[in-house]
Amino acid sequence: MSGCFITFEGGEGAGKSSILQALQQRLQQEGYDIMATREPGGIEISEKIRQIILNPSHTAMDGRTEALLYAAARRQHLVEKVVPALRGGQVVLCDRFIDSSLAYQGYARGLGMEEVYKINEFAVENCMPDVTLFFDLSPEEGMNRISENKLREQNRLDLEDLTFHHTVYEAYQKLINRFSDRIKVVNANQPFDKVLEEVYTIVLPYVQP
Amino acid sequence: MSGCFITFEGGEGAGKSSILQALQQRLQQEGYDIMATREPGGIEISEKIRQIILNPSHTAMDGRTEALLYAAARRQHLVEKVVPALRGGQVVLCDRFIDSSLAYQGYARGLGMEEVYKINEFAVENCMPDVTLFFDLSPEEGMNRISENKLREQNRLDLEDLTFHHTVYEAYQKLINRFSDRIKVVNANQPFDKVLEEVYTIVLPYVQP
Repeated sequence: MSGCFITFEGGEGAGKSSILQALQQRLQQEGYDIMATREPGGIEISEKIRQIILNPSHTAMDGRTEALLYAAARRQHLVEKVVPALRGGQVVLCDRFIDSSLAYQGYARGLGMEEVYKINEFAVENCMPDVTLFFDLSPEEGMNRISENKLREQNRLDLEDLTFHHTVYEAYQKLINRFSDRIKVVNANQPFDKVLEEVYTIVLPYVQP
Repeated sequence: MSGCFITFEGGEGAGKSSILQALQQRLQQEGYDIMATREPGGIEISEKIRQIILNPSHTAMDGRTEALLYAAARRQHLVEKVVPALRGGQVVLCDRFIDSSLAYQGYARGLGMEEVYKINEFAVENCMPDVTLFFDLSPEEGMNRISENKLREQNRLDLEDLTFHHTVYEAYQKLINRFSDRIKVVNANQPFDKVLEEVYTIVLPYVQP
């Protein structure tokens, strides 16, 4: 596949979605062919799977069922949207991917990173990201930003105990060690333009033909 | 868990569902507390997952997505229905379980038995069947029985090429070798009462307190 697959990871409020959008614009202005996405990404089967996960009446949902459903939605989004884009030579920017499942379901929810990695290896098959950006920001600062941000509604995860967000942060540190070749750490505790510049510098060698 | 978990496996037309029903009646008459089920088994989340799998408009469904969805439906059925029954000391008779996924998705559909086993290990966790009955019947005989059986409508799998059913049969032979302690072979090419007797004799040591 001739394209390039870049994923954006981090805790809540670290700014990855805004930077993703800005990076997309910048790269497009420079003539790169970009496809920005996030699961379930409008893929019908993945959207339907996501509806099952998020249905608030499904209080009996088991943690492992949920992890399998996330992996299934990931697989279908990958096959229908990411892989065709990569085959077409596009640069794919994806907001959250496998590492989010490992950090949230695997580590913070206690299913086990290795266990969750197994089912995600099955889902992703041979299509791992070429590079992953981890937006490094303390959970306290992330929560501060969210509570100050009037543009963005708080979601369920934002409201979790700060302890949970610390556990997620800890999980990402483990992932950075484990996948040190793939995951690049971005200092997200800087002004927006500085973060964008840092991200741009990291991805440039990957996107250049 | 004090109960006993028995699964029924085999190709199409091998008679496992009818024998399951007859065994249930016999064991109930003898005073055993039986719960007969088959996935998705009326479990809301599993039923909804199954609807996604079976929706004929989902022509883009990837084989790995499907396998992950089957594993998710399995997990939820197990957690909500099988495990509580086993905890309550019941004998659980389940029509098809993990081996069907390994044989159909893993082997016959070509995803790989080891690969499909990985995600099913995750789904089943520590709740493998105590014993599995494999209904041994040649694919030709299975297909003959189905075409003669006016009581049962043919389904999509029944109509698959005979080659496919041979591949499924081959897969089960591999599973019997691999899980030789767990899987017991039943000669399904006998009159109904003989098959029932054979099954009864196999399961009795497992269900007796």
